[in-house]
Amino acid sequence: MKIDDNFYMKLAIDEAWKYQLLTYPNPAVGCVIVKDGKLLAIEAHKEAGQAHAEVNALKAAFLNYNPNSVLKTKQNSEDIHDFLIKNHNNFFNDCEIYVTLEPCNHIGKTPACANLLKELKPKRVIISVKDTNNIASGGIETLLNENIKITVGVLENEGNNLILPFLSWQNKTSIFFKIAQTLNGATNGKISSNRGLAYVHALRDKIDLLVIGGNTIRIDKPTLDTRYIQGNNPDIFIYSKNKIFDKNIPLFKTANRKVIISDDLFKLLDYKFVMIEGTYNLLEKLKQRIDFIILIISPKIKNGDNASNEINMDFEIMHENYIGEDKIVFLKRK
Amino acid sequence: MKIDDNFYMKLAIDEAWKYQLLTYPNPAVGCVIVKDGKLLAIEAHKEAGQAHAEVNALKAAFLNYNPNSVLKTKQNSEDIHDFLIKNHNNFFNDCEIYVTLEPCNHIGKTPACANLLKELKPKRVIISVKDTNNIASGGIETLLNENIKITVGVLENEGNNLILPFLSWQNKTSIFFKIAQTLNGATNGKISSNRGLAYVHALRDKIDLLVIGGNTIRIDKPTLDTRYIQGNNPDIFIYSKNKIFDKNIPLFKTANRKVIISDDLFKLLDYKFVMIEGTYNLLEKLKQRIDFIILIISPKIKNGDNASNEINMDFEIMHENYIGEDKIVFLKRK
Repeated sequence: MKIDDNFYMKLAIDEAWKYQLLTYPNPAVGCVIVKDGKLLAIEAHKEAGQAHAEVNALKAAFLNYNPNSVLKTKQNSEDIHDFLIKNHNNFFNDCEIYVTLEPCNHIGKTPACANLLKELKPKRVIISVKDTNNIASGGIETLLNENIKITVGVLENEGNNLILPFLSWQNKTSIFFKIAQTLNGATNGKISSNRGLAYVHALRDKIDLLVIGGNTIRIDKPTLDTRYIQGNNPDIFIYSKNKIFDKNIPLFKTANRKVIISDDLFKLLDYKFVMIEGTYNLLEKLKQRIDFIILIISPKIKNGDNASNEINMDFEIMHENYIGEDKIVFLKRK
Repeated sequence: MKIDDNFYMKLAIDEAWKYQLLTYPNPAVGCVIVKDGKLLAIEAHKEAGQAHAEVNALKAAFLNYNPNSVLKTKQNSEDIHDFLIKNHNNFFNDCEIYVTLEPCNHIGKTPACANLLKELKPKRVIISVKDTNNIASGGIETLLNENIKITVGVLENEGNNLILPFLSWQNKTSIFFKIAQTLNGATNGKISSNRGLAYVHALRDKIDLLVIGGNTIRIDKPTLDTRYIQGNNPDIFIYSKNKIFDKNIPLFKTANRKVIISDDLFKLLDYKFVMIEGTYNLLEKLKQRIDFIILIISPKIKNGDNASNEINMDFEIMHENYIGEDKIVFLKRK
């Protein structure tokens, strides 16, 4: 196997995917640092407000050589920036820094990564995808102005897939579809492990609207909350022509939640970040409106309901992770 | 992400899985070489008679520093051994060598890896799984006698999964089950891409018996040959109570092949390496007899036949690869 720019960028991309969607309103970004051929750090941005991928990786790389540095105690992004600018001592001059997205050039909740890199003067910065966000972009220019060598477009297709969910969200309503199933496509009954369920609850905490079919409410009576992680409960959109539901089920009793019962999908556009939880029949109805699909696969075979009407869709697998024993597959339509 | 022994061993294991089953009668083995912190080689054993994983990795590592060495021209395992023993010039003294299986200690089609490593005196050899094969084992002892530092048991569960297919084959008849399906579990019609089919043909070339259900023969009339790769055609076992088939279909006309029509599974034990190609119904019938399962998943959703009788099986996913756009999932029963 070739150990080249593609190899190191793949490590950065894979690391970033572990936090896909959990970083909102920031994009998922990964960063790898190689110092004179030595792989020192594989890190990602994990949550909005916390350090960016580059900062996490720069910290890990520095600590790799200076394990007892006071930097170890610093968690706050601004503190790490300050420390590195004052104490780098040219440590990064022979480093190659792989980052999945152009380093940000603007001071938001955390200081700009491009400014930090400019000070640290690495040997080369390798970028998968340019930032098209007008506010944050300009990082490449900042680095080029300092005569830092830049390589852009490494694993660009994979880098674009990584950022697809974020781009779908950035300027419009992002709508994604979640299905949980067994290996053979059965979707009924309890499918996911508890860790898989906790992941779904983490997603519910990030979205602002959850869409679900009326029959699921009638048959399964789900609460659709975030109790596994004690997060925020999203509003619920019950997609149904028939407006009659038993209002005594827990779904309707959950605090701080609006429940909409409607068959007018146009109302989804009142929200910014929408997850549809359903099975293949609902997917077939809504497929024109979704940006990507999350398939959670439990490694079981069991007899059950699966695709039962005329469905024919081709996908590209954007990425796959494991959540405990379950698989998480990110798909986009071809 | 921690960059430690587990990280490097995972690279070796993943590389080895790419050649799983294709190395028979040898096990799938991977090897990674890190020189003073620099990742120099990620290699695997690819085919019986060709160089072992360690030899491929030692060659790649040496060429990484000496790209114009005449070693580049050497393909034969014995020639690479000879060259490295004469020309290593202590290059490997600061190398850590990660290998998924204890280095072989016996001279078979190629010279013993343990003897080579003994001469090259690496700083440390890290091994996932000990070799239980009486003929090839003893590598650890050989290295310890030379005072080479050894670490054993890194990612042992993953290392054991990697070698499970080989161990199932070593002392008995190995029987594995292959299913091709879409994401939603549909198994009828043309499922796999041409690259997926070529992979199946490569498996057919390695096995000596292919088992298939009688109904598949009656309905699909498959040839079950290896035309995509022009390999050897395995014998066929048609699992059927009803012995009447149309003998004019190509399956029966393929040269150098025996076709058995029987419902006596005991006859499988006359063979050494058996693949069953079928769907979930056949899997349910034969599940007690199989060592592992290969699931080929095409990233499509389509309406179709899938599990239709009482099936309930739990699996561990041992590994996954891509073959073109299709996924190859290796499962074992829990």
